[in-house]
Amino acid sequence: MIWYKNNDNDIVISTRIRLARNLDGVPFPNALSDKAAATEKIKAALGGGNSALAKDLDFIDLDKSDPEHKARLAEEHLISPQMLKGKGQSVYVSKDRTMSIMLMEEDHIRLQVIMAGNALDEAYDLADKIDSVIEENVTYAFDESFGYLTACPTNAGTGMRASLMLHLPALTLTKNIKNVVASAGGMGIAVRGLYGEGTSAEGNFYQISNQVTMGVTEKEIIEKLKTVTDRIIDMEKKARAVLEKNSPNELADKVCRSYGILKYARKLSSSEAKSLISDVMLGRGMGIIKEKGKILPMECMIMSAPSIIGGGKLGADERDIKRAEFIRENI
Amino acid sequence: MIWYKNNDNDIVISTRIRLARNLDGVPFPNALSDKAAATEKIKAALGGGNSALAKDLDFIDLDKSDPEHKARLAEEHLISPQMLKGKGQSVYVSKDRTMSIMLMEEDHIRLQVIMAGNALDEAYDLADKIDSVIEENVTYAFDESFGYLTACPTNAGTGMRASLMLHLPALTLTKNIKNVVASAGGMGIAVRGLYGEGTSAEGNFYQISNQVTMGVTEKEIIEKLKTVTDRIIDMEKKARAVLEKNSPNELADKVCRSYGILKYARKLSSSEAKSLISDVMLGRGMGIIKEKGKILPMECMIMSAPSIIGGGKLGADERDIKRAEFIRENI
Repeated sequence: MIWYKNNDNDIVISTRIRLARNLDGVPFPNALSDKAAATEKIKAALGGGNSALAKDLDFIDLDKSDPEHKARLAEEHLISPQMLKGKGQSVYVSKDRTMSIMLMEEDHIRLQVIMAGNALDEAYDLADKIDSVIEENVTYAFDESFGYLTACPTNAGTGMRASLMLHLPALTLTKNIKNVVASAGGMGIAVRGLYGEGTSAEGNFYQISNQVTMGVTEKEIIEKLKTVTDRIIDMEKKARAVLEKNSPNELADKVCRSYGILKYARKLSSSEAKSLISDVMLGRGMGIIKEKGKILPMECMIMSAPSIIGGGKLGADERDIKRAEFIRENI
Repeated sequence: MIWYKNNDNDIVISTRIRLARNLDGVPFPNALSDKAAATEKIKAALGGGNSALAKDLDFIDLDKSDPEHKARLAEEHLISPQMLKGKGQSVYVSKDRTMSIMLMEEDHIRLQVIMAGNALDEAYDLADKIDSVIEENVTYAFDESFGYLTACPTNAGTGMRASLMLHLPALTLTKNIKNVVASAGGMGIAVRGLYGEGTSAEGNFYQISNQVTMGVTEKEIIEKLKTVTDRIIDMEKKARAVLEKNSPNELADKVCRSYGILKYARKLSSSEAKSLISDVMLGRGMGIIKEKGKILPMECMIMSAPSIIGGGKLGADERDIKRAEFIRENI
């Protein structure tokens, strides 16, 4: 199941587990001249195409992929944005696009599982299982006191980053999002814009993830993230209830207008589309909007991202026209 | 035919002819204590219910009408806004609501014909015919040198005000409307907001009318107004062509978004509704919007006016909600 397809969640959109692993005795990618050899070693460990795992994976050499294909993988969160410009990098993607194994990113291996909705346990269990399969055939860089060694020390220890994409329109609208960031930060959980560090929270999408990877177990990370997530869901629901109680007509008007604009506009910038789609997701979540187009809002958003809608070929104006057309026909 | 029903004109919306007449030897209404007697005299002249004309007319005593009924007559332009607050006034309205004869307004008789579209000749011919019928049975205040005498000297002479309601969105958008006002003014034609003097041009609706009533014949007034109207239509069409040539996507986006908002909003102020409806009329006129609701935009505008949608009972917020509901379901 591709995480953004047929995904009608309106608060916890998706869950992601990422494990950073490196080959023992091989320099980290930033200091590695022969990335091809390291890549071959991992490919062999994954069973060379014969294991059950290997049969479920498609290998993509990013050096041989066109920019549009790479851009799409990044939009789907199957590779990191940094890999769009990398060299000597590749990725395994599972048939159901739930799992990807990025090779020669910051670390030799970045194993990722991404699932729709609030699915920390399932995502972690799958990541852990695949990790064990790989570890049967390869020796990871591991230190008894530090744990898994990584290119950047902030990832060492468990090597795990668990994150959830949250959609928090009511907390944003009522300006309570600052409290969320502060309270999560106090528990060692970072809150950022959708595409990781340094990006803003366009469309009211936030990513929360663990900051600490060392001196804690994977289970502890998961449990802490669950606690914070449940607390934020509760805060968002309360903020929605307040909006509904204090200004039901204004709320309905706002989300319905946004839907009307998406269904009729002839030009839509990426940023405006995200904001309007966020409104529609809120409207659907609160039962105000019941109409349903060919695809759900979240898929509209991903499929109308600049790199996908433009195919790397169109200028901004043409993209805005094509985006409006796509959304108009599908939402 | 009610002028605003099934009216798909997008530049010249309607044509109105108004003749001011007074009874000979009776003080003008502002100085008249016994308005009832003057009213009876005119009622008798109109045939007392037996003539063909009288059979086509419904008599409405405005003192006995509830505020909602009067407000609706004003929105339909069958009585003047001033008559909402008057005393001792009444109006005859023809079955097809093309004609009204206001009694004891500023003058004893204000005969009005209102038709959809650009119809100066037809409207004048009808007004002239009715005027003759009335004059067969009553002596008008008339002076050989001044012409028809009226309460306000600016109406004396022909007693005629011919006006057209124009919808000039492109001239407004391109800021050329000032040239229109100046050039029409130079020919003795006034350009004003929709509801006459002192009102702004909400929704890009303007009323043009003759300023001079004395020293010219009715035919001369009509011909001059036709010339100015044709010139303005031409200017508006050219302005639309420029918009279509220079920014077709932005134009389509603007009118389609307005349609989307009208079809989905849950709250609409009167002023916003007019502005959005103006966009939709422009979009229909330019062939950009082809969808058609239960009723045409102009009727939506009239039927969602504050006095009609609120029925004199609702507050502004409730009216905005009811207006959005009415427009959403009908446009």
